Amino acid sequence: MAKCISSSIIFAPSSSSTRTLKPSPLHFQTPKRSLLSMLSPRPRNPFSVFIRATVAIEKETPENERPDTFLRATDDPHSSAAASPNSVRARFEKMIREAQDEVCAAIEAEDGVGKFTEDVWSRAGGGGGISRVLQEGGVWEKAGVNVSVVYGMMPPEAYRAAKGGDSLEKPGPVPFFAAGISSVLHPNNPFAPTLHFNYRYFETDAAKDAPGAPRQWWFGGGTDLTPAYIFEEDVKHFHQVQKQACDKFDPSFYPRFKKWCDDYFLIKHRGERRGLGGIFFDDLNDYDQEMLLAFATECAQSVVPAYIPIINRRKETPFTDQHKAWQQLRRGRYVEFNLVYDRGTTFGLKTGGRIESILVSLPLTARWEYDHEPEKGSEEWKLLDACINPKDWI
Amino acid sequence: MAKCISSSIIFAPSSSSTRTLKPSPLHFQTPKRSLLSMLSPRPRNPFSVFIRATVAIEKETPENERPDTFLRATDDPHSSAAASPNSVRARFEKMIREAQDEVCAAIEAEDGVGKFTEDVWSRAGGGGGISRVLQEGGVWEKAGVNVSVVYGMMPPEAYRAAKGGDSLEKPGPVPFFAAGISSVLHPNNPFAPTLHFNYRYFETDAAKDAPGAPRQWWFGGGTDLTPAYIFEEDVKHFHQVQKQACDKFDPSFYPRFKKWCDDYFLIKHRGERRGLGGIFFDDLNDYDQEMLLAFATECAQSVVPAYIPIINRRKETPFTDQHKAWQQLRRGRYVEFNLVYDRGTTFGLKTGGRIESILVSLPLTARWEYDHEPEKGSEEWKLLDACINPKDWI
Repeated sequence: MAKCISSSIIFAPSSSSTRTLKPSPLHFQTPKRSLLSMLSPRPRNPFSVFIRATVAIEKETPENERPDTFLRATDDPHSSAAASPNSVRARFEKMIREAQDEVCAAIEAEDGVGKFTEDVWSRAGGGGGISRVLQEGGVWEKAGVNVSVVYGMMPPEAYRAAKGGDSLEKPGPVPFFAAGISSVLHPNNPFAPTLHFNYRYFETDAAKDAPGAPRQWWFGGGTDLTPAYIFEEDVKHFHQVQKQACDKFDPSFYPRFKKWCDDYFLIKHRGERRGLGGIFFDDLNDYDQEMLLAFATECAQSVVPAYIPIINRRKETPFTDQHKAWQQLRRGRYVEFNLVYDRGTTFGLKTGGRIESILVSLPLTARWEYDHEPEKGSEEWKLLDACINPKDWI
Repeated sequence: MAKCISSSIIFAPSSSSTRTLKPSPLHFQTPKRSLLSMLSPRPRNPFSVFIRATVAIEKETPENERPDTFLRATDDPHSSAAASPNSVRARFEKMIREAQDEVCAAIEAEDGVGKFTEDVWSRAGGGGGISRVLQEGGVWEKAGVNVSVVYGMMPPEAYRAAKGGDSLEKPGPVPFFAAGISSVLHPNNPFAPTLHFNYRYFETDAAKDAPGAPRQWWFGGGTDLTPAYIFEEDVKHFHQVQKQACDKFDPSFYPRFKKWCDDYFLIKHRGERRGLGGIFFDDLNDYDQEMLLAFATECAQSVVPAYIPIINRRKETPFTDQHKAWQQLRRGRYVEFNLVYDRGTTFGLKTGGRIESILVSLPLTARWEYDHEPEKGSEEWKLLDACINPKDWI
């Protein structure tokens, strides 16, 4: 990996391996941000593979205030996606920022105790983001909701490959734009499930020396539920809301994206999923662009109605040390998936992203017992069985 | 990785991704074993790289009794390393099994409460191992001490590359032998450090159709200390014992292997080591073979005198919730290193090794706080500073 990166770095990576521990109390808050929430986690098209192999991350600057937009004032004049408020990129940014506000407000209202802290940052080359984290609240032990906008360059080989051997001869690096929202919400109560969601949008511009060359765009994302115990009522409700969002656009979406989710969140070395799935899609561009923007918006707006009613029902359920220990073992599985398989996480770690933002997805606490095995027929066994053999919940 | 493996599998990997949760209470104990403790964790020579890329793991069979040896009764007759009790492989196996007994006895004696449970396993193709785990003891929350012996095959390209373009034209796969001991010991008390050690020996035989071809061997291993708090007396003692072991063989060993250890156990995305180091070496074959066998033996025998006196001093030190929380954050770092960087772990997970044995290295519990930063000058800060800027302890 490192070798691939070093041969084609476009942004200089943060040289964290030589850092010195300085007296400044802000030392660990030096903001560095990665493509974490932007990156396509499944390399179905050649873009994704190349981006992962060749992009490293520029350093960020902390900002005191949220700007109205992280888009560049003037984008590539040859691009049809300049920073007009009607461009898809502008509307996608607006959508994810509204979703961030909406989800954070709903979390704070349901939590009753915790408040989100916010970090705003920008990059000299354009782009930036807003990270919000609530930790050790009344209901959630750790909740992170991040949005970001990234401008970058990808090698021309990736672009040519994606276009299936187009006529471009020796173009320069291809500019790309990526924006996304990414969130992981870990509650305290072992009967209240963890939620993850992530919606992202990519665009490429033509290379500078090939202004008329075709451009690419695609959408990716998903929302998935990770309980430690199964309440059928909860899981059905969650999947039903996902299906409703999908069905508004295409009846094939829910079954296709439900399976994709089950496939993606597999902890391969255990042969089990980290949770009970939901929907997941990536590299989606074979539909109308406006339709997919509306679909991603619908999905993001479905997070609160899919999740908050479940938390409301479970957040005060009494539990024992055994329930908590099982939740902690499942949190260990969550750590395994994120550190070993999740492509956004592993890419972010290896390209010099801002570690605290990337790893806010990890639970506050986790547990690994040697050879733990739930008793057959127990509630723990039922959860594990559903992680090994994905079910149709609706 | 999967692609590389699929093109040159010699052993069939365990197909864990399709497992079904069965009613048998032994389901999760199905023994599958990886090359975990055997694999050279630093690809300095071409062998290591190729082994990692191309070997997948045969399934194991549980055994009720420990055999006298895991070596094949009849090894390759063209090899000078047949299963004679005087062969290096036989003496190495004897050494690691004695070291396992010695370390486990010392741990149980010091723990006072916990007892090791044992799993013995073998492979149809030859080889096997003994895993011992003590969990939730009086002193250690999790202690694993494993030995294993592996017979495998590596692609001839690896062998040719290692020999620098020798005259072999089209040899078959090259048989190899690997044996090792691997251990991670996590105490409860935040003032008592975690210890890891691992010593391993590799040999190749000539390919069957090239009986006179040159053979290769090498040693690897190390012992390193991971405290949450620094007691200079402890760290100096630990490094002093490592230096004494090294100095008996070569005055260059300690400084060289101390630096190698600091380099290897770097959590690259944080720019900090997981702990305070010790010694680490790999692919060592440019010394007399008998000398290196004696050196590995000395190192393994140094584990108890290096570690147990420290535990004895710290195991009953009173501590607060804050001390425990800091230990848990450092345990989180340990998880990050092992799941993201440790080559034995990542290889084992991806080639179908026995997961519970591989992940016994993970702590019982761990913690991740967003943007945690120790106060400058605090004891936590001093530990972090020493992980970022490795010190000379003696």
